[in-house]
Amino acid sequence: MTIIAVRTYDVRFPTSRELDGSDAMNPDPDYSAAYVVLVDEDLREGHGFTFTIGRGNEVARAAIDTLAPMVVGRDVTDLGEFARRLTHDSQIRWLGPEKGVMHLAAAALINAAWDLAARRAGKPLWRFLVDLSPAQVVDMVDWRYLSDALTPGEAIDLLDAARPGISDRLDLLGQNGYPAYTTTPGWLGYDDEKLVRLARQAVGDGFAQIKLKVGADLSDDVRRMKLARQAVGDDVRIAVDANQRWDVSAAIEWVSALAPYRPWWIEEPTSPDDILAHAAIRQAVRPLGVRVATGEHVQNRIIFKQLLQASAVDVVQIDACRVAGVNENIAILLLAAKFGVPVCPHAGGVGLCELVQHLSMFDYVAVSGSVDDRTIEYVDHLHEHFEDPVVVTKGAYQVPTAPGFSSRMKESSLTRYSYPNGPAWH
Amino acid sequence: MTIIAVRTYDVRFPTSRELDGSDAMNPDPDYSAAYVVLVDEDLREGHGFTFTIGRGNEVARAAIDTLAPMVVGRDVTDLGEFARRLTHDSQIRWLGPEKGVMHLAAAALINAAWDLAARRAGKPLWRFLVDLSPAQVVDMVDWRYLSDALTPGEAIDLLDAARPGISDRLDLLGQNGYPAYTTTPGWLGYDDEKLVRLARQAVGDGFAQIKLKVGADLSDDVRRMKLARQAVGDDVRIAVDANQRWDVSAAIEWVSALAPYRPWWIEEPTSPDDILAHAAIRQAVRPLGVRVATGEHVQNRIIFKQLLQASAVDVVQIDACRVAGVNENIAILLLAAKFGVPVCPHAGGVGLCELVQHLSMFDYVAVSGSVDDRTIEYVDHLHEHFEDPVVVTKGAYQVPTAPGFSSRMKESSLTRYSYPNGPAWH
Repeated sequence: MTIIAVRTYDVRFPTSRELDGSDAMNPDPDYSAAYVVLVDEDLREGHGFTFTIGRGNEVARAAIDTLAPMVVGRDVTDLGEFARRLTHDSQIRWLGPEKGVMHLAAAALINAAWDLAARRAGKPLWRFLVDLSPAQVVDMVDWRYLSDALTPGEAIDLLDAARPGISDRLDLLGQNGYPAYTTTPGWLGYDDEKLVRLARQAVGDGFAQIKLKVGADLSDDVRRMKLARQAVGDDVRIAVDANQRWDVSAAIEWVSALAPYRPWWIEEPTSPDDILAHAAIRQAVRPLGVRVATGEHVQNRIIFKQLLQASAVDVVQIDACRVAGVNENIAILLLAAKFGVPVCPHAGGVGLCELVQHLSMFDYVAVSGSVDDRTIEYVDHLHEHFEDPVVVTKGAYQVPTAPGFSSRMKESSLTRYSYPNGPAWH
Repeated sequence: MTIIAVRTYDVRFPTSRELDGSDAMNPDPDYSAAYVVLVDEDLREGHGFTFTIGRGNEVARAAIDTLAPMVVGRDVTDLGEFARRLTHDSQIRWLGPEKGVMHLAAAALINAAWDLAARRAGKPLWRFLVDLSPAQVVDMVDWRYLSDALTPGEAIDLLDAARPGISDRLDLLGQNGYPAYTTTPGWLGYDDEKLVRLARQAVGDGFAQIKLKVGADLSDDVRRMKLARQAVGDDVRIAVDANQRWDVSAAIEWVSALAPYRPWWIEEPTSPDDILAHAAIRQAVRPLGVRVATGEHVQNRIIFKQLLQASAVDVVQIDACRVAGVNENIAILLLAAKFGVPVCPHAGGVGLCELVQHLSMFDYVAVSGSVDDRTIEYVDHLHEHFEDPVVVTKGAYQVPTAPGFSSRMKESSLTRYSYPNGPAWH
C-alpha cells in the first residue's frame, strides 16, 4: 500500500448565509474541509479531511501539503507507524506538539489512509476495526504519555474482556443502529418559533435527545430552555452547549439558572484546555443533576487522559478530525473504557457524522460493549455532498455497509465549493 | 498607529549541520523564524517573529499571512484590543483555540506591534512596559479563563505593591544586569571533551548556572552529569532538560539516578500538556532536592494557570513567541507573581534571547520585584544576525537601551538565510 500521490483541496460551504451552526462563540461559521486524497500504486484512493469553520482553512491545507513528503513514496500498510511518523517529525512537532493546525493536518492524512485500508479490505471502517485483534488495535496507539493512566497490557485485557459479546452486539447493532441526538433545533441564530417547531419535529422523528446552544444571554437562554422543555416533554433529554464561553463562576451561575428545566449535560462550559476548571464545574453542578461534557476542541489524548484522571467529565466527546485521526481516537476510546465514562462523539459540521459513526460502532461492538448513555450527535446538514451519507432513522444511525470511512465527498461538490474559485463563491 | 503593509519572510539557519541545539527530541534542528514586518502610515516599521526549528516554518508564515487582513488598514494603538482581535476571530479560533500554528503566528504579529509602539515611544520595550500604569498593564491581558486563579483587581493590587521599589530596582538593574545561565555546553550531540571544555569556560565566563540536555540514554546522562559536576564544582547550578522525553515513571527513575550530582531543576520531564503528570513528578523529586521546570512548549496562559494551581512546577519558563506575544506573557508573569513562583525564560533558538530579556527586566522592575532564583537562558548562537544583539557579560544580560524589542534582524541576514531561495540554502 504505497502512496504515489497526494491531492489537497480547500472546500468551503457558505453556511453563514443561513446562520446554520451559529453558537455563542461561532456566530457565522462557513463549514469547510481541508480535504486530501491519497492514491496508491494501484490507483486506488483514500479520502480524508479535517473540518474547519472557514477562515484559516487554507492554513490547514498548507499543513497537509507540508506533511505530504512524509507520505508520498511510502508504504502505509502499518497504520500505527504511519500515524506516529506524521505526529512525531522532530522539526514539525515544534509547531505543536500534537495540537493545532499540524495535528488537524495529520488527522486528515491518517483518516485518508484508514479509508484506503478499509476499502482495500472491502469493509466499512467500523467493521475493519472490529476485525483487528486486540494486539493489532493496541499497536495502533501512540502510548507515549499514557502509562500513568493506561498501559498496553491493560488495554489488551480490556479488549479481550469485550470479545465474548461481539457476535451478539453485531446483531443488535444491525437491528437497532446506534442512538443519535440532534442539534438541528438549537442553533443560537434561530428564533423561538423555529426552535419550538424543530424541537417538536425532532421528537416526532424519534430522537430521545436534543441539544440547545447557550451562553450569549442568560435570560434568552432560560426562555429558550423553558420553551424547548415544553415542546419536547419530560422524557426527552435536552443537552446544552456553551461552546467555551464561560469562566468557572459564570458556568456555575448559568447552569444553576437553567437547572429547573433539567439540562442533561452542559457541554464545553469553559476552555477545552482547562482540566481543573472542568473538575470544579462538575463538582458544583452534579448536585443539580447536570453532567459535564467536553471534547470537540480537546487537542489530544493527553488532555482527555487528564480530564478522566481528574474526574472532570461525565461524557467524553471525541471528534474525528481534531486529534490524530482514527489512531488517537482508539487511544481515547480505550481511556474512556478504562475510566467507565461514556463516549458521545461530536458531529455535525461537514462530514463529521459520516466519520464518527464508525468510531462509535467500533466502540460498542469491541471496546466499551455498551450503548448506555451513549449517543452520537446528528445535524441534518451537508450530507448530500457525500457519496455514502449517513442514514439516521427513528433517532438512530443505521449501520454503514459500503467499504471505507464514508469520507468521500462527491466530485461535483469538491468542484462547486472549492475556495475561492468554485462557482459557489463567485 | 495605522498599519498600511505587512511583509512576511521564511528565514532558516542550517544549524543542523553542526548539531547545535540537539537534544533528546530534536536531534537536528534548523533554527528558523517566520518573520513579519508591520509598516505604519509614517513608514515606521515594527519587526516580530515566531521561532520554529525548520520544517513547517512555511506553515507558520502562511498563518501570519492569513491573519494579515485583520491588521492592514487597522489602528493598533490599543495593543490589548489588537492582541484579543488576533486570537479570537470566530472562524480562526476553530484551528486552536489559542494554540499551535495560529497562536505562533499571532505571537509574531503582536510582538511586531509592540516593537513598533516602543520605537515610536523612543524606549526599549522593557522600559516602555515599566512606564505603563498598573491599569494599562492589566488592560493588555485577555482575562478570559483566568478568574478562578487571578482577577484584574488582584493584578492591580499586585502591581501597585511593586511600585514603591521601582526606582531602586532600575538602579540595580543598570548596575548588575539580569542573571543569565548558559545551555551552550550541554547539547546532546556534543562529545564529552567538548562538554567539559565548554562547562569550564562557562564558569570562567561568570555563569552561576549551566544546563545539560538529557533523556536519550540513562548511562550516558549519568556519565555526562558527573563530568559536568566535576568540571564546574559544587557551587554552580546544573539544570537538566529532557525535552518532553518521558512518561511519569521514567521521569522519576531518571531524575533519581541523576540526583547524586544535584541537578538544580529537571526541565520538560514530560508532555507540556500534562499538568497532572508534572504534579506527580514534582511530588516525587522534591525530596531529592530537584525542582520541576516547564514552559517553552506550554501553549497558553490557561495551561500555565493550571500548572500553578496544581503546584506542578517550581519554575515557570515563558517563551517570547509561543504564547500570544507580550500580552499573554504579561498574563503569565502576573499569574506567576500571584503564586510566588519564579519565572526563568526559555531562550536560545534564534532571537529568543533578544526578546525575553525585555520581559524578565519588566518582571523584575515592575511585577515580581525580585531576581532571586531567576535567570534567563542564554545560548551563544546567531546573535550576529540582529541589529541590537544581547550583551551578556559576567553571567548577566546587560540592559538594552535602543528603542524597540531588539527583534530586528539585519537585512543582509533576512536575504542570505531566506528559505528556500537564499544563498545559504543553495
